[in-house]
Amino acid sequence: MFLLHHLDQTIKKIKSQAANFITLVNLGLGAMAILFVLQNELRTSLLLITIAAVFDRLDGMVARKMNITSELGKQLDSLSDIISFGVAPALLLYQGILFTFGMPGAFFSIIFIACGAIRLARFNVTESNGFFVGLPITAAGCLLTLTFLLIDFIPAYHFMFITLILAFLMISSFKVKKV
Amino acid sequence: MFLLHHLDQTIKKIKSQAANFITLVNLGLGAMAILFVLQNELRTSLLLITIAAVFDRLDGMVARKMNITSELGKQLDSLSDIISFGVAPALLLYQGILFTFGMPGAFFSIIFIACGAIRLARFNVTESNGFFVGLPITAAGCLLTLTFLLIDFIPAYHFMFITLILAFLMISSFKVKKV
Repeated sequence: MFLLHHLDQTIKKIKSQAANFITLVNLGLGAMAILFVLQNELRTSLLLITIAAVFDRLDGMVARKMNITSELGKQLDSLSDIISFGVAPALLLYQGILFTFGMPGAFFSIIFIACGAIRLARFNVTESNGFFVGLPITAAGCLLTLTFLLIDFIPAYHFMFITLILAFLMISSFKVKKV
Repeated sequence: MFLLHHLDQTIKKIKSQAANFITLVNLGLGAMAILFVLQNELRTSLLLITIAAVFDRLDGMVARKMNITSELGKQLDSLSDIISFGVAPALLLYQGILFTFGMPGAFFSIIFIACGAIRLARFNVTESNGFFVGLPITAAGCLLTLTFLLIDFIPAYHFMFITLILAFLMISSFKVKKV
C-alpha cells in the first residue's frame, strides 16, 4: 500500500515536470547549436535550432494537454527561447556571413538578441488575449536561421537588413492571432 | 507650457527606463563576450563578462534608488543574466579548455547553462525573503569566468569538476543572505 502510494506520487511528480523537461531539451539543443557554431559546423547548428523549434512547440502542447501549465514553466520557456531562438540564430548568421562586415555585423547580431529579450520580457508581463503583439522570437529566430540557406544566393549586405527587420518586428506592436 | 509638460513627460519616461537601459547594456556586453569567444579572443571575453557583472549590480541599485523597479525590468534582468553569466562563461570555459574533452566537455557546459536557467526561473517565481536559495547565477558565472585565469596552473580535468559543482550549487537549496 505504501509502495503504491509512493509510486503514484512519483508518477504525478514526473508528469508535472514533463513539460519542463521538454523545455530543457529545447534549451540543450539551442546550447548545442551554439557549440557547433564555435566549431564552425554551421549546418549542424541549423539542424539543431530547427529541432529545438519542434520541442518548443511540443512543451506548450504537453503542458496544456496534461493541464500542468505553471509560472515556473513559463519562465523556463522564455530563458530557453532566448538561447535557442535569440543567441543561437544570431551567432549562426554572424559566423555564416555577418562577421565579414566587422563591427556593424556584430552590432546587428547583438541588436537581434536584445530585441528578442525585450519581446520575451514584454510577453511575460502582458495578459494573454489570443493575440501575439510583435513577431514571436521563435518565428523570428527560425526565419533568421533559414536565411542561412540563402548565403550563396543573395548579396551579403541583404543579411544585415534581414537581421534588423526581424529584430524590429519582434519589438513592434503589430498583432498576430495565436495559432 | 505645452513644451514644458512634454519635456517633463519625456524626462519621466527616460527615468523610468534608466534601469532597463542598464540591463540591456549588461545583455549587450554578454552577447559581445560570446562574439569574442567565437573569434578566440578569450581574454577580451573575460573582461566583458566582468564589466557586465558591474552593470548587473548597477541596474538593481538604480531601480531601487529611483523607485522604478518593475516586473518588466525583472524579466529583462533574468534574460540578460542567462546570456552574460550562463551562456558567455560556459562558452569561454568550453573554448578555453573543456573542448579538449570532446562530448563530455560540451555536455558539462550545457549542464551549467541549464542549471543557470532553472535557478533564474525558480528565483522569479519565489517570494523574496532576504535570502537567496542556491548560488545566484551572477556569482556562479563570474566564478566560472575567473577560473579561466587558472588554465595554465591546474590540471585540465579540474575544470570539469568546477563547472559541475558551480552548476549544482545554483540549483541546490542552500540559503545565502542577500547583500
